[in-house]
Amino acid sequence: MSTSTPAWQQSDGSAELRQTVIDRRGLRTDDIAVQIAYCGVCHSDLHAIHGATPHITDGGGLVPGHEFTGTVTATGPAVTRFAVGDPVAVGTLVDSCGECAMCLIGQENYCHLGPVSTYGGKDRVDGTVTKGGYSREYVLRERFAHHLPEALDPAAAAPLMCAGVTMWEPLQAAGVGPGSRVAIAGLGGLGHLGVKLAAALGAEVTVLSRTADKADDARALGAEELLLTTDDDQMRRARGRFDLILDTISADHDLSPLLRLLDLDGTLSVLGNPLLTGPRLLELTMGRKRLTSSGTGGMKGTSAMLAFCAAHGIAADIELLPSKRVNEALARLEDGDVRYRFVLDMSDLA
Amino acid sequence: MSTSTPAWQQSDGSAELRQTVIDRRGLRTDDIAVQIAYCGVCHSDLHAIHGATPHITDGGGLVPGHEFTGTVTATGPAVTRFAVGDPVAVGTLVDSCGECAMCLIGQENYCHLGPVSTYGGKDRVDGTVTKGGYSREYVLRERFAHHLPEALDPAAAAPLMCAGVTMWEPLQAAGVGPGSRVAIAGLGGLGHLGVKLAAALGAEVTVLSRTADKADDARALGAEELLLTTDDDQMRRARGRFDLILDTISADHDLSPLLRLLDLDGTLSVLGNPLLTGPRLLELTMGRKRLTSSGTGGMKGTSAMLAFCAAHGIAADIELLPSKRVNEALARLEDGDVRYRFVLDMSDLA
Repeated sequence: MSTSTPAWQQSDGSAELRQTVIDRRGLRTDDIAVQIAYCGVCHSDLHAIHGATPHITDGGGLVPGHEFTGTVTATGPAVTRFAVGDPVAVGTLVDSCGECAMCLIGQENYCHLGPVSTYGGKDRVDGTVTKGGYSREYVLRERFAHHLPEALDPAAAAPLMCAGVTMWEPLQAAGVGPGSRVAIAGLGGLGHLGVKLAAALGAEVTVLSRTADKADDARALGAEELLLTTDDDQMRRARGRFDLILDTISADHDLSPLLRLLDLDGTLSVLGNPLLTGPRLLELTMGRKRLTSSGTGGMKGTSAMLAFCAAHGIAADIELLPSKRVNEALARLEDGDVRYRFVLDMSDLA
Repeated sequence: MSTSTPAWQQSDGSAELRQTVIDRRGLRTDDIAVQIAYCGVCHSDLHAIHGATPHITDGGGLVPGHEFTGTVTATGPAVTRFAVGDPVAVGTLVDSCGECAMCLIGQENYCHLGPVSTYGGKDRVDGTVTKGGYSREYVLRERFAHHLPEALDPAAAAPLMCAGVTMWEPLQAAGVGPGSRVAIAGLGGLGHLGVKLAAALGAEVTVLSRTADKADDARALGAEELLLTTDDDQMRRARGRFDLILDTISADHDLSPLLRLLDLDGTLSVLGNPLLTGPRLLELTMGRKRLTSSGTGGMKGTSAMLAFCAAHGIAADIELLPSKRVNEALARLEDGDVRYRFVLDMSDLA
C-alpha cells in the first residue's frame, strides 16, 4: 500500500518547484523507508529541471534530489542490513540489474542495463518514474542505501553521496596517494570536496581557477597553491606538472590548456560537464595524455568513500537552508553563488 | 661542405614524386652520414604529400621517408657510438632540444620545443628544411640513430622505426603483458605490427576488422581471433572485453563502438588518425573509459623496441619494391592495397 509524502516538484515545465504531495510505494520485501533529514542541491538537479539530462524523465512532475541523509522508519521483511532508527545515506542510484559485469564488481553506476536513477529513473518492478530526495520520505531497496557513519554530520555528509563520490572514484582509479600531483579545476560543490579528498589521500594539490581571490579558500581546504588559468606565464611554467586533473567546471570550456598541464601519461578527468565534446586526438598525442570521465560511483566505492571521510573528518562545506527556500538555492547555484554546496533541511516539509 | 644525393621529391604541388638531386649538409662534429638501403612507405608520407600534416613544411620540394635502415659511411670527429660500416636504423625524428623534461626522460618525440622531423622539419642549427629517407644518403646527429640489431632483416626492420614504435609505446604505456586483453583495430602497416608485438608480450590479442576474410591472416600474425565490427551481435557480446584497444584505422570513423568494447578503466589509444575529433565526454563516462593517443617514440623506447624485436624475431611483413616504383607504392597504399608495408629498395638510386 503506497503512502503519500510532501515534496518539491516541478510542474508545467516551469523552472520553479512547488510543494506538493507525491506517492511512495509500499515496502517490498527488501525495501527500507527513509525519513529524509537533509538533501544536497546538485548541479545535475538544475540540468534535469532544464530538461538537459537525456536519461532523466520527469514522469509528470520532476522531484529532484539525489544526495540525502535520513533515518530508517520501516523495513521490509527480508531486510537484514538496517533497523528502524538507523542513520542512512542515499546517492544517485537506487537499483540496477545486479547481474551484469559492472554490477558484479560493485560498479552499479555503470550497470549494462542502466542503473535506476534516484529521480527520473524507471523502477525495475512496476515501471513508475522515481522521484527524488527533495521530499520527506523515500523508499528504496536496502542494497542501495549506506550506513551513515556516526562521525559525520548528517547535513554536511549529504553532498558526499553525489559530489563526494564523483571526486573519489577518479582519485581511486588513478591510484592517487602520497606524491601524486593533482590539480582540481573549479572550486565549487565538486571541486572543494576534490581538494579535501586528494589532500587527505596525501597528494600535492593545486587549484586551477580563473580568479585569484579563491587562493586563501583553496589553501584552507588543503591545496598547496592556486594556479591562475588566466595568467599565460603561470600556465606556461606549469606545463607537464600534473599526474591527474579533475575538471569540475560546469560551463563550456576548452580542454586544451588543461591537457598541456599534464605530464606524460597524465590523465584529465572531465567531471563537471560530461556533455562536452572531446578535443582533437592530436592534442592527446602531444605528450601522450589521457582523457577520461566518470559518473558518480558504485556501492562499493561509495561505501569506501564514506569510511574514508569518517576517518578523516571530511564532509562538505555547506549552506543549510530550509527546504521552502529551494528555488532560491537553485537560482543562486545557477549563478555560482554558493560556498560550496546548498543542503536543504527537509524538516519543514509536513 | 655539403654533398649531393639522389632522392624522390615532390615538386609543384603534384602528388607525383620525381627523381632529383638534393643537398646533404657536411658533417658536423657529432653527425654521421648514412647510405640508405631500405626506406618504408608510411601513411604519414601520403598525408604530407597531400599537405595535410600541419607541422611538415615542404621547403620547396618535399622528400618523404622517416623509417629507414642503412650503413654508416662517415662520422664526425665527436662521434662515439658509430663507426663506418655499422648498420643503422633511423626513425621519425633527427633532433630535439635535449634539455626539456621530455628530452631528459628519453621522450624526445614530445620535446617541448618540438622535435625536428626526419623530413619537413627545421634544422636547429641552420634552419634548413630536412629532407627524408626516400633518398640515397642521409646526415644526422648520431644521438638520433639506432644500431640495427644483426638479428633483423634490414628491409623488414625499416618499418619498425615508425610503425613499430608507434605500436610499441602505447603497449608499454598500458603495461601490456601476460593476461592483458588487447584488441587491434585495423590490420595494416601499424596494425599487423601491433598484433605481433602484443602477442610477443604475452597478451591475448583480438583483431577488430570490418572484413572476415582477414581472420586467417590475423591468426597467422599471432591473434587469437578476429572480431567482425560489422556484426552487431558479435559486438554486443564483446562489450567490456578489452583492457586496451590500439586503433590503427586511418579513415574517419566513429569511436563509440570501440569504447563500448572496453572494460572499466580500459584505454582506447587512437593512433591511425590523430586528426579525429574526440567523442562527447559522456561516452567516456559510461564505464569510465580512457581515451588517448601517442606519436611514434623517443630514443629510449625505440631502442627498447628494437632489442625486443631482435629477441623475438619480429619485423614487418613487407612488399619490397625498387625505389623507382615509389609512386605505384603510394597509390596502392592510398587504396589500402598492401600487405602490410611497402619498403623501397634505395639501391637503384644513383
